[in-house]
Amino acid sequence: MGKVVTLGEIMLRLSTTAGTRLAQAEDFSAHYGGGEANVAISLANYGHHAVFASKVPTNELGHAVKKHLNRYGVDTSQLLMGGPRLGTYYLEAGVGERGASVVYDRAGSSFAVMEKLEWTLEELFQNTDIFHLSGITPALSASWRELTVTLLKAAKKAGCKISFDVNYRGKLWTPEEAGKSIRAILPYVDYCSAGSLDAQHFLGIPPYTGESDKEETIYYYQKMQEPYPNISVFYSTKRTVHSASVNELTGTLWADGAYYESQCHLIDPIIDRVGGGDAFAGGILHGLLMKDSYQKVVDFATAASALKHTVHGDCNQFSQEEVEAFLALGSGKIRR
Amino acid sequence: MGKVVTLGEIMLRLSTTAGTRLAQAEDFSAHYGGGEANVAISLANYGHHAVFASKVPTNELGHAVKKHLNRYGVDTSQLLMGGPRLGTYYLEAGVGERGASVVYDRAGSSFAVMEKLEWTLEELFQNTDIFHLSGITPALSASWRELTVTLLKAAKKAGCKISFDVNYRGKLWTPEEAGKSIRAILPYVDYCSAGSLDAQHFLGIPPYTGESDKEETIYYYQKMQEPYPNISVFYSTKRTVHSASVNELTGTLWADGAYYESQCHLIDPIIDRVGGGDAFAGGILHGLLMKDSYQKVVDFATAASALKHTVHGDCNQFSQEEVEAFLALGSGKIRR
Amino acid sequence: MGKVVTLGEIMLRLSTTAGTRLAQAEDFSAHYGGGEANVAISLANYGHHAVFASKVPTNELGHAVKKHLNRYGVDTSQLLMGGPRLGTYYLEAGVGERGASVVYDRAGSSFAVMEKLEWTLEELFQNTDIFHLSGITPALSASWRELTVTLLKAAKKAGCKISFDVNYRGKLWTPEEAGKSIRAILPYVDYCSAGSLDAQHFLGIPPYTGESDKEETIYYYQKMQEPYPNISVFYSTKRTVHSASVNELTGTLWADGAYYESQCHLIDPIIDRVGGGDAFAGGILHGLLMKDSYQKVVDFATAASALKHTVHGDCNQFSQEEVEAFLALGSGKIRR
Amino acid sequence: MGKVVTLGEIMLRLSTTAGTRLAQAEDFSAHYGGGEANVAISLANYGHHAVFASKVPTNELGHAVKKHLNRYGVDTSQLLMGGPRLGTYYLEAGVGERGASVVYDRAGSSFAVMEKLEWTLEELFQNTDIFHLSGITPALSASWRELTVTLLKAAKKAGCKISFDVNYRGKLWTPEEAGKSIRAILPYVDYCSAGSLDAQHFLGIPPYTGESDKEETIYYYQKMQEPYPNISVFYSTKRTVHSASVNELTGTLWADGAYYESQCHLIDPIIDRVGGGDAFAGGILHGLLMKDSYQKVVDFATAASALKHTVHGDCNQFSQEEVEAFLALGSGKIRR
Amino acid sequence: MGKVVTLGEIMLRLSTTAGTRLAQAEDFSAHYGGGEANVAISLANYGHHAVFASKVPTNELGHAVKKHLNRYGVDTSQLLMGGPRLGTYYLEAGVGERGASVVYDRAGSSFAVMEKLEWTLEELFQNTDIFHLSGITPALSASWRELTVTLLKAAKKAGCKISFDVNYRGKLWTPEEAGKSIRAILPYVDYCSAGSLDAQHFLGIPPYTGESDKEETIYYYQKMQEPYPNISVFYSTKRTVHSASVNELTGTLWADGAYYESQCHLIDPIIDRVGGGDAFAGGILHGLLMKDSYQKVVDFATAASALKHTVHGDCNQFSQEEVEAFLALGSGKIRR
Amino acid sequence: MGKVVTLGEIMLRLSTTAGTRLAQAEDFSAHYGGGEANVAISLANYGHHAVFASKVPTNELGHAVKKHLNRYGVDTSQLLMGGPRLGTYYLEAGVGERGASVVYDRAGSSFAVMEKLEWTLEELFQNTDIFHLSGITPALSASWRELTVTLLKAAKKAGCKISFDVNYRGKLWTPEEAGKSIRAILPYVDYCSAGSLDAQHFLGIPPYTGESDKEETIYYYQKMQEPYPNISVFYSTKRTVHSASVNELTGTLWADGAYYESQCHLIDPIIDRVGGGDAFAGGILHGLLMKDSYQKVVDFATAASALKHTVHGDCNQFSQEEVEAFLALGSGKIRR
Repeated sequence: MGKVVTLGEIMLRLSTTAGTRLAQAEDFSAHYGGGEANVAISLANYGHHAVFASKVPTNELGHAVKKHLNRYGVDTSQLLMGGPRLGTYYLEAGVGERGASVVYDRAGSSFAVMEKLEWTLEELFQNTDIFHLSGITPALSASWRELTVTLLKAAKKAGCKISFDVNYRGKLWTPEEAGKSIRAILPYVDYCSAGSLDAQHFLGIPPYTGESDKEETIYYYQKMQEPYPNISVFYSTKRTVHSASVNELTGTLWADGAYYESQCHLIDPIIDRVGGGDAFAGGILHGLLMKDSYQKVVDFATAASALKHTVHGDCNQFSQEEVEAFLALGSGKIRR
Repeated sequence: MGKVVTLGEIMLRLSTTAGTRLAQAEDFSAHYGGGEANVAISLANYGHHAVFASKVPTNELGHAVKKHLNRYGVDTSQLLMGGPRLGTYYLEAGVGERGASVVYDRAGSSFAVMEKLEWTLEELFQNTDIFHLSGITPALSASWRELTVTLLKAAKKAGCKISFDVNYRGKLWTPEEAGKSIRAILPYVDYCSAGSLDAQHFLGIPPYTGESDKEETIYYYQKMQEPYPNISVFYSTKRTVHSASVNELTGTLWADGAYYESQCHLIDPIIDRVGGGDAFAGGILHGLLMKDSYQKVVDFATAASALKHTVHGDCNQFSQEEVEAFLALGSGKIRR
Repeated sequence: MGKVVTLGEIMLRLSTTAGTRLAQAEDFSAHYGGGEANVAISLANYGHHAVFASKVPTNELGHAVKKHLNRYGVDTSQLLMGGPRLGTYYLEAGVGERGASVVYDRAGSSFAVMEKLEWTLEELFQNTDIFHLSGITPALSASWRELTVTLLKAAKKAGCKISFDVNYRGKLWTPEEAGKSIRAILPYVDYCSAGSLDAQHFLGIPPYTGESDKEETIYYYQKMQEPYPNISVFYSTKRTVHSASVNELTGTLWADGAYYESQCHLIDPIIDRVGGGDAFAGGILHGLLMKDSYQKVVDFATAASALKHTVHGDCNQFSQEEVEAFLALGSGKIRR
Repeated sequence: MGKVVTLGEIMLRLSTTAGTRLAQAEDFSAHYGGGEANVAISLANYGHHAVFASKVPTNELGHAVKKHLNRYGVDTSQLLMGGPRLGTYYLEAGVGERGASVVYDRAGSSFAVMEKLEWTLEELFQNTDIFHLSGITPALSASWRELTVTLLKAAKKAGCKISFDVNYRGKLWTPEEAGKSIRAILPYVDYCSAGSLDAQHFLGIPPYTGESDKEETIYYYQKMQEPYPNISVFYSTKRTVHSASVNELTGTLWADGAYYESQCHLIDPIIDRVGGGDAFAGGILHGLLMKDSYQKVVDFATAASALKHTVHGDCNQFSQEEVEAFLALGSGKIRR
Repeated sequence: MGKVVTLGEIMLRLSTTAGTRLAQAEDFSAHYGGGEANVAISLANYGHHAVFASKVPTNELGHAVKKHLNRYGVDTSQLLMGGPRLGTYYLEAGVGERGASVVYDRAGSSFAVMEKLEWTLEELFQNTDIFHLSGITPALSASWRELTVTLLKAAKKAGCKISFDVNYRGKLWTPEEAGKSIRAILPYVDYCSAGSLDAQHFLGIPPYTGESDKEETIYYYQKMQEPYPNISVFYSTKRTVHSASVNELTGTLWADGAYYESQCHLIDPIIDRVGGGDAFAGGILHGLLMKDSYQKVVDFATAASALKHTVHGDCNQFSQEEVEAFLALGSGKIRR
Repeated sequence: MGKVVTLGEIMLRLSTTAGTRLAQAEDFSAHYGGGEANVAISLANYGHHAVFASKVPTNELGHAVKKHLNRYGVDTSQLLMGGPRLGTYYLEAGVGERGASVVYDRAGSSFAVMEKLEWTLEELFQNTDIFHLSGITPALSASWRELTVTLLKAAKKAGCKISFDVNYRGKLWTPEEAGKSIRAILPYVDYCSAGSLDAQHFLGIPPYTGESDKEETIYYYQKMQEPYPNISVFYSTKRTVHSASVNELTGTLWADGAYYESQCHLIDPIIDRVGGGDAFAGGILHGLLMKDSYQKVVDFATAASALKHTVHGDCNQFSQEEVEAFLALGSGKIRR
């Protein structure tokens, strides 16, 4: 089993049940989550030593975050407490043709307003196999754009592999800002989650002009790897959105000049798609830590992501054994 | 923005959650609704001055009706209070192959037992663009059959366009009674929601014998318009009921001798189909008030109806901007 | 109307709502059920005199079982009270590709630990048309394997028809134990629910090698009947599991050398599939008691089973009239 | 154990949870109850053969009534099905200083509109020890005023003891109507629940002018018995309403010229006081059937009533053993 | 009936149910409220024309605020939409000895960050009898301290009476800041809600040294009025906090040199005390508008406040008739 | 901060909400708890290193136990997985005069059937300040009676202080068995929770004959200490049960020949009293580890216990700061 450190923001999600609009809701479900926290939970579920580093306010919501992470066995010794507030967002669940709707209220959070790194970096990265972060962190502020690079250098120096999920959010920064920052980050990265839009918008790769889905994915992976040969593994999911209730999901991975693809999962109905990508990333990092074959890596990760869609909340709640049993058993069988 | 007056009965719906039978239920969800009230709410959501005229008892249920309408900005100055009771009905939600089941308990309601018009008609119809009512009102009693015509004459005299939704309910009157009354109403009507069964049963139009769906709809619209050239717009939805959980819905409209049809919406899953037709009618009247192109009118109205199926309760809960964004965005995308 | 006695274990099921894992659940839904109890409830719903014989502890859970059965009009005069505990199990609802998951906690129940028959058998089987039991009972203990045969002999002597549902549960006994016991039971049986796996594993019938689904079913029925010509009716369902949320279900029946098959029901979504087989068996026994045509028997039983999948809880909650209206009305229509 | 027949109306109660107003409620709890039905359930809980005779509509609500009664083992063979509707009422739960608020919607129910007795009276009263009814039934219509007397005569003739609960409801009839009817009923009565207001308003007994609570109760019992020496037992509760959440309750009984009084129960908090009086009456009839000492009769009945206040729903849900254990154990102890 | 304009911030309250801690909560109840909005709702309930002026974001939460106010008939034509966010706070309900606990997250709200008055003041105050605001508004920012005085001058000029609720919140400003601002406001005020702590901290009134509760209240009212003879009515409640579940509440009022006091209400249990003071203020303003006797004014207002404690949510949900019936009926009686 | 190891059984509690009987419940709340686990959680909340050693089955319920403990930061490295089942019990919540009612289903649990100690005792007790266990463990089996003494010897040898909570349960063993076992345990104990009944039944101390409550408590503590001078601290709570909803609670402690008593807490209403004693024990051990004054120790522990009664679930959910703030703030004040 490995040790992984993930660092990023964690927020309170307040969501309605399917069929109720935000403006009509008399109550909200509360879930705590964030891309990097979700990856840490996945890895803790699989038995790895997973550390989540962040900053949350010294109030009951901050304690709730800590309890949430502890529940899954995530190491919270690097979870700082202090600052003004916990970022929140409101999610109106989508149904059928009607997509979900989000109201963000995340500005000014304890994590977002950090101006300097308040962790002891040597301690943070001690004996760490992988350091994972996402493109949301540099999107939060000019400070964070600088701090992100500082973190990467320190992690690299401490001997960590770097895992980076581009995860572009148009509400947080412009494509220009994002592109500049991402291009500064990628030279440090070993494992990268990025898709065709990332390739085009941030790396200036010309659009694919062929007709094969599979070739298209390979094209972008190859083109992204050219300027960054340091990135040994690229991965992402292809999602066909039939509706807010029905998606198809296929995992893809590019490594050692070869392309791997999982079976296609029909997810019908979707209980909660928030965190689906994080469950995939968590599965990929697990597979890489276990030195599984790349085919097994992508199969496991996609199965984990498909499972995530069947439970409420942002985080994967399945153990390695459960993900593997799911892969083996096939669709919808009862385990008695 | 226009001013629309709708008049009709509003009831309390007591419904079970999917998977629970009426005879087993330990609690019921409460929703207030009625065709004309639902149309008024749609129009208020779109920014029009919508007045709902009716009569409800002077008790907490009557006040609940008022609060429900106020919530959406409907003008309740013509909502009379008094009389014996609020009509109610019990709805056992359908699931998959099993259709919904209804137990009516609506007889003797404050509205149904009205013997004379208790509104000041000049005031009621002042500066009003459209007066909307449905075939349920004349179905309630012999008195209401007369009062309906009185209302139509007064509205016409006050310069209103008349909108009429045939909305035949076999539990309330016989086809013979209905036909007689409807034929007395149609000469006053400008905009009419009616389908092929209405055409056959109440206007004696012989069944279509061709094989084209589209031609069939046009055939009935044309045949219905022949005796009533005063009706400038006909509209209705075509619904393919795959199951209680899955329907396909297409809106159709006939105006100026031309036929317009929306895209087909796949509604899967259906959260609540009650009020789907009213949301369609509300969208049509909105489009007509806005003098939109007929294609836009029917597209908007069908989108509004499709959205209604995704929320609990009888009434449309979407603004004009939201319906338009839904039309633009396509199926199931998240709006972040 | 007939009189039917069913005898077996009844348990408390504690289940989560879809989307919540067992280890995460803050509450559980409570349902009482068991194959034979469920069959008794079906038959009571259809107007028969249905007796359920079992043993439950003298505590609030035992009383809950009694109230549950009484609610549907099942005769509980043969429901003994005493012994150590009520068997329970935990069900994590499946969703889409992810199947349901079960944690059993049924060992040592008041029924399972019975060492002798505590009923007066003459009284138990008085004026009884059918005695129904399942393969779960002999699976519970060596004692029960003996007691089962004693029961069958007494029932036979009292003039009952014997109905037996093989219902093999791999967690309770081995295929060898099961085969031995089942082969001891079948000579007493008149109506038998068994499928192709039962035929192969317990009766040693060689696998079908053809390609026709229908032929395959007939093949097994024929082969099973050969050694047991006393069994006049075989029946079972064919279930295609698309996912935990979507199944297709077809009922089949073999009698008088002829094969009967219902239409195929698409069950989408499944609310609760527990008890679906029992609802089928209940429908079959009803049809046989009513001396309906075999086609009607299997159509009715399959419709009853399809309906069961649309409600929470283990038991069929539909009357004969409702099942027949469902058959007549078709998919998803509202009954207003 | 005895046999008791109770006859009266049963209604659907729709209630809010404490702290939610009727006009604000998004859901209602559903409970079925009525004075005579509640008494029948109490007696069935104690092991008597309790028959409830009434009439409910042939719809899902009617079936719900039947299932509700069956659950507790009440004999529903005399529960007729048919007629227009089930009476309902809405209850806004009271809290502290704010009392509960009721909206009745009971007019025109299947029971209330009965014009003749649809039971075979010989069968109804066969082998019956006690026939119980209340003053609500004659209050429903002029027909019911006549039918009530017819029932009493038939019951008397069949050898039943007559139990009558005055239960005056000012919303249903005037004191004059009530007085006339009640005075016509009392000559048939053996056991009567009536209080000081009943004595004054219906029997013209002059108000007590002394100062002793106990003497006052005795005074009214004596004065009521004078004109009706046929009434061998009078009983009622004295309730001190501190608030909607806190009441004190003492049971009183008058028999053989002697007065009996239970301890005073402090009921804090009240979960649901509906049916508290019926639980008391049920306890009294049980004690009389068991020929317990009058002190035990009133102690048991008051304990049963106090227990009723601690559970949701109209009916007593405690067995004889549980009521007796409650009496023995004292206040608030855990039974482990 | 009068016209009242209230102006202030409105927030989203997210609260747990009693017995669940914030850090443990899986869902939150959502209520919208603020002192001035709550006063407006009270007045609309009593039939006055109540306008609430504020600013909320152009998102679903802003629309929820509008719908909430509309529901009670509050005029929302002066509710501006725009700005960054809606202020929120989290409330952990108190129980018994354990008081409630609050986590504020209100900084940077659309209302709080306003730098100039975005209403047309002539229009805002047109034909207005009373303009009501509270000390929370000037506490929000230096800008608001200035804007508050600008508003008061304009209201005064337009002929409004000014109502001011001191409502000191130590989390928002220091006593020094508050004192300075309050002393700048009071010269414009006609009706003022202030208590003994306000008198001491903001007006420098020396502590009362006597022993009579009543005299103490009068002392502070007199001393406060001395420097501000323009204030014709002072009012406040005296609350004895026995626990988070039990309070005693008495209303007091000082006008025309005389002191008025309501009866003492025992509030047990408290369902929700948020908004209790606003319900009192709303009742006072109603009484003043109706020119009731001062004794009736304070009795009505205290009854309204006591009722508020019995319902969930921030706002009074009782009509004038209901408050008066409550005063007349006494404690805990059922209204049937 | 110290290190404490607690060892014992943990069970799943299934409870109804107040007002619903077990036999009526359609759902149960799920809580995991046990005396020793609850003490460990308290200590983890206060910042100590708390280890809980036990054995739970390798299924979802076992994982749920682990997640529950992790959530509060309890060290679960000594939580073994395996064995047949998790013990459960059903709790019907008490209300007012009606006490709670319990149905146990705990026999044969993974922990109860342990025949040997499966922990490495050196590792278990390494660097441990206190080893805490209760009288429930030796009550489970003859094996556990032996194993308990083995554990105590090992803990003593490793230098731990021994904390023992007598916690007699009459359903598990006889007073004779208990007395023999307890007398074998006490010679190893340093801190002991025991009350007057324990003193009389297990140590043969003659009943106190005086009249002072305080003297009585001191008498029993002195008499218990006489034969066991090794026990330096005795502690227990005095509980006055007014009803299931209202208790008074006082903590008492005896150390160094002096008696200490906390203030009396009025707990009204009680949300959940399960675990109240464990929260007291956890507070005592915390105070002893912190070397607080004995008065502070008992005040803190009693406050912690009082707080526990205000939240759902078995475990204390309050930090040291929160307990201290509660002690300082007094009854029912809001912390804003």
